[in-house]
Amino acid sequence: MFVDRLIEEIRNKNNPSVIGLDPRIEEIPLYIREKNFNEYGINLRGVTGAIIEFNKKIIDSLYDIVPAVKPQAAFYERYGTEGFEAFKTTIEYAKSKGLIVIADAKRNDIGSTAEAYSNAYIGKTFIHKNINKTVFNADAVTVNPYFGYDGVRPFVEDCNNYDKGIFILVKTSNSSSGEFQDLQTDRGTFIYEEIALKVNEWGKDTVGKYGYSSIGAVVGATFPKQMEKLRSMLKRAFILVPGYGRQGGTAEDAAKAFLGDGLGAVVNSSRNVIYAWKSNIWGNKYTERNFTDAARAEAIRMKEDINRALRK
Amino acid sequence: MFVDRLIEEIRNKNNPSVIGLDPRIEEIPLYIREKNFNEYGINLRGVTGAIIEFNKKIIDSLYDIVPAVKPQAAFYERYGTEGFEAFKTTIEYAKSKGLIVIADAKRNDIGSTAEAYSNAYIGKTFIHKNINKTVFNADAVTVNPYFGYDGVRPFVEDCNNYDKGIFILVKTSNSSSGEFQDLQTDRGTFIYEEIALKVNEWGKDTVGKYGYSSIGAVVGATFPKQMEKLRSMLKRAFILVPGYGRQGGTAEDAAKAFLGDGLGAVVNSSRNVIYAWKSNIWGNKYTERNFTDAARAEAIRMKEDINRALRK
Repeated sequence: MFVDRLIEEIRNKNNPSVIGLDPRIEEIPLYIREKNFNEYGINLRGVTGAIIEFNKKIIDSLYDIVPAVKPQAAFYERYGTEGFEAFKTTIEYAKSKGLIVIADAKRNDIGSTAEAYSNAYIGKTFIHKNINKTVFNADAVTVNPYFGYDGVRPFVEDCNNYDKGIFILVKTSNSSSGEFQDLQTDRGTFIYEEIALKVNEWGKDTVGKYGYSSIGAVVGATFPKQMEKLRSMLKRAFILVPGYGRQGGTAEDAAKAFLGDGLGAVVNSSRNVIYAWKSNIWGNKYTERNFTDAARAEAIRMKEDINRALRK
Repeated sequence: MFVDRLIEEIRNKNNPSVIGLDPRIEEIPLYIREKNFNEYGINLRGVTGAIIEFNKKIIDSLYDIVPAVKPQAAFYERYGTEGFEAFKTTIEYAKSKGLIVIADAKRNDIGSTAEAYSNAYIGKTFIHKNINKTVFNADAVTVNPYFGYDGVRPFVEDCNNYDKGIFILVKTSNSSSGEFQDLQTDRGTFIYEEIALKVNEWGKDTVGKYGYSSIGAVVGATFPKQMEKLRSMLKRAFILVPGYGRQGGTAEDAAKAFLGDGLGAVVNSSRNVIYAWKSNIWGNKYTERNFTDAARAEAIRMKEDINRALRK
């Protein structure tokens, strides 16, 4: 079961973090860009050549110390068909290194359409007669619940059929997340709480041997009070925690997503790790020539930071 | 401005409908599938060869009578990188025939990520130095508002910068849409009404010469009471109306999305039109050999059905 594999990887590496692979061409070391522009041209293929090279180097520097990576679909989709090829290559490469891959796609639609999305990310796509193929073949995908269960059910079914997971948006990390998510209902609940209750219901038949469900939730580290409330409400859901680091969430904030067993969450960091050589934290220690050392150092710093907060 | 072009196309063709291009390989005429499987192999490339051929024939049969088409991203994404190539080819072909293209992608994320999505669908993507490229280059895209304005702003900015439009999910057409969208707030409003109020606010600076905004809304024909309420609340938003036909909405239901000027909405139909040769409505009149005649006949029937309801 997906959630069991995730937990075992977290325990093996003593690291409850996930690294976001969010490539922005303008942030990638110039020598990698120039090399690929020379090889493929100054075009989308050149861009995605650079992205693939960058991602592989980041993965090589991290796969033995982190349990999971989270490629953000938007940062591949932005580069068109070529970008999706890079997305696919990145997922395959990360899996070949033993990493769990969470495709951050936040897909959502009516049932028959949600099924097509689910097929693409965690299920299989019908080709002809008895031929079905995996497409992006991630281990898990993020899902927006706005359509209600119609739009979530196909993902839950693929989780059961193919041993995969989903993380459903409950309370997002961005500053305007409260506009709708924090509206209060006439029975005194917040919208994010109503969604948390549904996540419990939707995930109750997908619980693994450690007591957690493969139907997880997304709750931002940037809202520690809501996190505390949601952690107590989300009975079995594993929580994917964005917002640590660059967005302002601390290790102490993220720690509220965990339960007494030291489990229950994975904390994401993207830009702080993959572009760590530019970060003030490390002074002049790193340059674009040793960006993988910087990424590894930051991933270790993050792991220790979160584990320290969890011991408190 | 996007909404002005849409209105002018609707007027030119006297047809306020949009045809959903939602290709499912299993629904495409077998002879088209076999031809493409023979040419490219029984694989994703064979599938998307068939999809491109099918879509082009559908577009050829409709472009002079309908103002717009709406390819649903999921039905391309399901076929991976090859699927996105078909999505891109379909958009280009439709635009070359003068059709307005609404990419139905329902994208959503935090601001910096929403910007990447917006770049892909309606904006431009940075490549290098002063080189920026359009990627899918649709005329408009659908957006899920769950993140609040942070996640919508980049799309609004691209609408202003590139003369594009968005349609924001307000009340979706599926049967479980009420699970969250119909929750009532402590001030007596429904969640979909709260979103409608925000759509008004977000769209107030993007109003064209006919008084409508390029920042539109999605409201399903399957909920006519809510449609009536929302049409009165959504001051300037053009409404994209799914749910007509196969999903159960009637022309009278859809007509509630229009204002007294006969404008204010476009009604979508997907499967009923593109797979019309299979529909009971037409008896044995059509086969897969003349599926384009069936699609054209159904598109005309739909246009007349909606215009009849609008004259009431």
